[in-house]
Amino acid sequence: MSSIFCGKTLRLSIFGESHAAAVGMTLDGLPAGLAVDMEELQAFLKRRAPGQNEWSTPRKEEDMPEFLCGLKNGYTCGTPLTAIIRNKNTRSGDYAELRTRPRPGHADYTAELRYHGFQDPAGGGHFSGRLTAAICIAGGILLQELERRNIQITARISRLAGIDDEPKAFPAEREAGGCIRLKTPGQLFPVFSAERGEAMRAAIADAKADGDSVGGVVECVAANVPGGLGDPMFDGIENRIAQLVFAVPAVKGIEFGSGFGAADMRGSENNDAFVFHNGAVCTETNNSGGILGGITSGMPVVFRAAFKPTPSIARPQRTVNMETGEEESLSIRGRHDPCIVPRAVPVIEAVTAIAIADFVLAGE
Amino acid sequence: MSSIFCGKTLRLSIFGESHAAAVGMTLDGLPAGLAVDMEELQAFLKRRAPGQNEWSTPRKEEDMPEFLCGLKNGYTCGTPLTAIIRNKNTRSGDYAELRTRPRPGHADYTAELRYHGFQDPAGGGHFSGRLTAAICIAGGILLQELERRNIQITARISRLAGIDDEPKAFPAEREAGGCIRLKTPGQLFPVFSAERGEAMRAAIADAKADGDSVGGVVECVAANVPGGLGDPMFDGIENRIAQLVFAVPAVKGIEFGSGFGAADMRGSENNDAFVFHNGAVCTETNNSGGILGGITSGMPVVFRAAFKPTPSIARPQRTVNMETGEEESLSIRGRHDPCIVPRAVPVIEAVTAIAIADFVLAGE
Amino acid sequence: MSSIFCGKTLRLSIFGESHAAAVGMTLDGLPAGLAVDMEELQAFLKRRAPGQNEWSTPRKEEDMPEFLCGLKNGYTCGTPLTAIIRNKNTRSGDYAELRTRPRPGHADYTAELRYHGFQDPAGGGHFSGRLTAAICIAGGILLQELERRNIQITARISRLAGIDDEPKAFPAEREAGGCIRLKTPGQLFPVFSAERGEAMRAAIADAKADGDSVGGVVECVAANVPGGLGDPMFDGIENRIAQLVFAVPAVKGIEFGSGFGAADMRGSENNDAFVFHNGAVCTETNNSGGILGGITSGMPVVFRAAFKPTPSIARPQRTVNMETGEEESLSIRGRHDPCIVPRAVPVIEAVTAIAIADFVLAGE
Amino acid sequence: MSSIFCGKTLRLSIFGESHAAAVGMTLDGLPAGLAVDMEELQAFLKRRAPGQNEWSTPRKEEDMPEFLCGLKNGYTCGTPLTAIIRNKNTRSGDYAELRTRPRPGHADYTAELRYHGFQDPAGGGHFSGRLTAAICIAGGILLQELERRNIQITARISRLAGIDDEPKAFPAEREAGGCIRLKTPGQLFPVFSAERGEAMRAAIADAKADGDSVGGVVECVAANVPGGLGDPMFDGIENRIAQLVFAVPAVKGIEFGSGFGAADMRGSENNDAFVFHNGAVCTETNNSGGILGGITSGMPVVFRAAFKPTPSIARPQRTVNMETGEEESLSIRGRHDPCIVPRAVPVIEAVTAIAIADFVLAGE
Repeated sequence: MSSIFCGKTLRLSIFGESHAAAVGMTLDGLPAGLAVDMEELQAFLKRRAPGQNEWSTPRKEEDMPEFLCGLKNGYTCGTPLTAIIRNKNTRSGDYAELRTRPRPGHADYTAELRYHGFQDPAGGGHFSGRLTAAICIAGGILLQELERRNIQITARISRLAGIDDEPKAFPAEREAGGCIRLKTPGQLFPVFSAERGEAMRAAIADAKADGDSVGGVVECVAANVPGGLGDPMFDGIENRIAQLVFAVPAVKGIEFGSGFGAADMRGSENNDAFVFHNGAVCTETNNSGGILGGITSGMPVVFRAAFKPTPSIARPQRTVNMETGEEESLSIRGRHDPCIVPRAVPVIEAVTAIAIADFVLAGE
Repeated sequence: MSSIFCGKTLRLSIFGESHAAAVGMTLDGLPAGLAVDMEELQAFLKRRAPGQNEWSTPRKEEDMPEFLCGLKNGYTCGTPLTAIIRNKNTRSGDYAELRTRPRPGHADYTAELRYHGFQDPAGGGHFSGRLTAAICIAGGILLQELERRNIQITARISRLAGIDDEPKAFPAEREAGGCIRLKTPGQLFPVFSAERGEAMRAAIADAKADGDSVGGVVECVAANVPGGLGDPMFDGIENRIAQLVFAVPAVKGIEFGSGFGAADMRGSENNDAFVFHNGAVCTETNNSGGILGGITSGMPVVFRAAFKPTPSIARPQRTVNMETGEEESLSIRGRHDPCIVPRAVPVIEAVTAIAIADFVLAGE
Repeated sequence: MSSIFCGKTLRLSIFGESHAAAVGMTLDGLPAGLAVDMEELQAFLKRRAPGQNEWSTPRKEEDMPEFLCGLKNGYTCGTPLTAIIRNKNTRSGDYAELRTRPRPGHADYTAELRYHGFQDPAGGGHFSGRLTAAICIAGGILLQELERRNIQITARISRLAGIDDEPKAFPAEREAGGCIRLKTPGQLFPVFSAERGEAMRAAIADAKADGDSVGGVVECVAANVPGGLGDPMFDGIENRIAQLVFAVPAVKGIEFGSGFGAADMRGSENNDAFVFHNGAVCTETNNSGGILGGITSGMPVVFRAAFKPTPSIARPQRTVNMETGEEESLSIRGRHDPCIVPRAVPVIEAVTAIAIADFVLAGE
Repeated sequence: MSSIFCGKTLRLSIFGESHAAAVGMTLDGLPAGLAVDMEELQAFLKRRAPGQNEWSTPRKEEDMPEFLCGLKNGYTCGTPLTAIIRNKNTRSGDYAELRTRPRPGHADYTAELRYHGFQDPAGGGHFSGRLTAAICIAGGILLQELERRNIQITARISRLAGIDDEPKAFPAEREAGGCIRLKTPGQLFPVFSAERGEAMRAAIADAKADGDSVGGVVECVAANVPGGLGDPMFDGIENRIAQLVFAVPAVKGIEFGSGFGAADMRGSENNDAFVFHNGAVCTETNNSGGILGGITSGMPVVFRAAFKPTPSIARPQRTVNMETGEEESLSIRGRHDPCIVPRAVPVIEAVTAIAIADFVLAGE
């Protein structure tokens, strides 16, 4: 098991290693006849692609997917849709030492425990962030379908290196029940406050200059999601989004609506009063993040995911040499993002699209 | 789908409604020959049971499970194990109005959207916290098996009504790699600092006096978990714990290790240096929460779950009347916990046991 | 895993042992609002119940299910529906010897290998035919829903003790495309030819008199099934029906349409010509059993399941004594059916209903 | 859902269409460190490949898989293993008419019902026998691992065009409990009786000369399978093998052990007496096909699958024109096997390997 997500209608298989021939995905359970706009998909994948700016690894990958099957004349066939991305720009460097001298904060050591030396350590192997390119193919296709159904999913950087974007609240929350068009789709560094964005970028540059890295929080909103989606107990919208979000490397936390903040509130503050808005049942606030009992209320689905700082840093770190039994100092060479948060934004949109489309396509 | 969790080796089916004949669970995939100590199980269930003290609903339920099958002479048969708890102390009050005047913060409204009036609204129906009694039967059995394997899972109240327990860090983190015996198992209000615990209880009493409620954070540690457990991508330990934790009513967030705090740290701070400790590979800190790449490292698994304040409060709230189309004021009568956090502690231990036992029993 | 069927929309959990407190089932994924007629369900269960006539075990069980949850005012709630049947008429006989002297043709020996002595051997435990009562609760509910959608599922005894019912072909096959009402629903010994039925019953009586048993074949037809149901590869209608039919004890083979007969035919004989019938596309013959590529064609779904003779026979048989290491003679006492085929007819209808409803309810 | 098999430890995703860029498979859940001998795998795939002799389509495909990931230095990494086979020798002929004039016995019509015209009809699309090449990659890898564990799976043609191979019984059945080496592995037309094989080939040639086709039966034996494999109810060995076997195009029936023959036997005949053989518990006969209660007994697992005659025949057939509403005559051009049974032999071995390895690798 493991790299296949089994949803209510969709099954998504992710495969590949960072330095293997390819990474890719198979999306099974798609209805026949969904249109796939290749240019739009390519534009979406480009937001995640590396090598474009100062905060991402200089490893250049075109990330142009090849569709092997399941797509004909721009429409899904209804049978499994498989697409791969060839790994071209791999370096032949010596990754064998990752097995004996695991990088702190990486999966090198745990992969060794799990796979007993047979894992592909190069570039993080199957644990590499590169695998999110495959997730984005699936998510990008589903985002197009959701958009056709007027469901819009957009994420932004809500916090980075301790700097909050402003305003804290997503505007979507205030216009609940209406047809919301978010303001940041498609940006490479999506924030509401240009000024705060500048400060964040400066913090990235500082960390990079120090041979270090920073983390942050991505906030995602799914607007115009129909109410009544989600199953109770283990398969609610929160369970599913969480299961998918933790598939994204470096995520260490998730919260919905008021989230951890709710823990400090009283019921009378946190409860969202029901009101009528243009004849529709809405809630005045959206502390629930659009989800009650695991089921969507029709209000925007809102959540935040916490990303740890990139574990690959140039600064010397302590690790163990598993051959010699000695503790050593490790300086990680290679091309790494000083902050992966900006490139993670479309990935979060992608997994959210997968979670929500899975229920929407069930047609209940 | 929905109320059946499909893990790597275990499948857990939860069924029942708050005011139906019973709630219960079927645990499938258990190996044959696991001992079940009924007294110990009963003691575990009692920690979750209502009616015992000032912070819980006065609804008294013995929560004595009846085992229907799968257990013989105190050992699991290997075939499905089913246990039910009869609902005895139900009130015949009028719950029909929950459909027309949904309670803010509850699943009344979303259940109506999802089930079109056929749901059982009484006491929250299938969305009631009462269902966690069934989860605790499964978790309690698995906790016993994990304990036999020297894996100990203990949770505490780490924050309540904005008051932090002290110390913030779980002691377990400092004694990594050793055989840790946590200090709070079995307590009804588990905190490290008696003083802080008193303050928390006072805050609950205050909220209750105000006809209001408070939320909090439960921190859970699984100690002595073998390294190498978990699958990549969608089925890592984080994905699974998160999927299960969000099955617990009122949870709105989860974070592993340094969690949301990691988002504010630099890589050099957050990365856990690998060190040798008594010949074993350990990490000096445990910001990863014992999980790297979704796979356990052998360090204690640590996470925190945020609980919103109980949505049922006596104070008047605004809601809609779906029959008249008017906005109305709602005062919730009935027996409710002013804070569900203390009773949620064993539930969090239960779902953690399910997540971890599922991998441990796979025997990899 | 094991005793939970995971379909496209439905999950069915079967639990219990022959001499445990109860057998039962949880059906998850049912839409809300399906009507359940209890009298009709009881009549259906009665067809399977033992103790009614000369070919079944004299063990009398009322098989009256108790619904624990998921049903309110005669309609499904949409949340898990659980029903149990208490085991009342169990004999306290010594079943321990089944572990040391396994009965030929039974699961006693393989259960010992699988569960290492912790299984419940009494009455076959979880492997008992009694578990099919639980399957029939689920199937009976779904048959009612299918009937409302004009889909009718009826099975008959097409062969018993080497005696064929006449005509061999199911009449349904000749009236394809129309609204077929089969002629044998609800009978306890459903055959087309009364004369052949008499011969079959005589054969059962003969076997019984000899302390022996006989087997047979059940043929099942699902009429008015919409075309286009089923998924390719592993989840086609044939795959699913087969997976479910082999859950019925004593089944050793299944064939669809012309089945094993097709192996002896030429393509020009076996291919079903497409024709128009009242404006609808039909096939002139139905050698495909209503399924092409795993997907329904709109023609009646037709299959046959082969049942081995009841393994429990009074005549002495050879077995091994696993304690002494000696080969011994075994005479099985107790109450057993000389032929389980008649009572298996409603069970086959039940599993067929589960397989087909699972796709029908997906609403594609 | 659909083209992903979810087993106990393995998940197999099959993708591709006959005339798409590629067919392929992802095998997830494989342990790390399994050796894959590429030459042996290639030899196995060659047995299924077309274009080699008089009974197969002249379409030549090298069927050389490209491994995209999950394999390093000849060993599985433990992460998803993906391999594809490019479709090179496709004809650009007009397949569009398959949608309007469906071929009898094919999935053209049902695919149209299911996918509403978006399916890829060329060469049968996702329903083509070509997809079995992908199944054989997975099966071939698992056969190697099973062989290392002394489990051997071999199939033969037991009946073709009404001609039985001799002897009917598989020799394996007589040497139960020992280490059996079957006699026909690797043959392109595996039969025991050379004479009967000649007659079968002649029957194929006759049918071909008539523009027609013939069917047959493949018998498969898995020898030295450990006892105790399989789960009760829905996930027994029979359920799983059946689910997988019906994924092979043209299969219309399956029977285990004495199968449909058991229906005509008395219990005293069909029951397999338990005996000691070299100190091990065996059965004297193997009418159960090595499976009791869905669980392996340690005796050889034996089953037979019925294949219908190839539906593609040159002889004119009747079909409907869905555009004009007229009935028409259809003559199928193109390259087709007059009998697919010989090439199906390795495919049956492959799916059997998948079913059995899935349980073996669970390590229970």
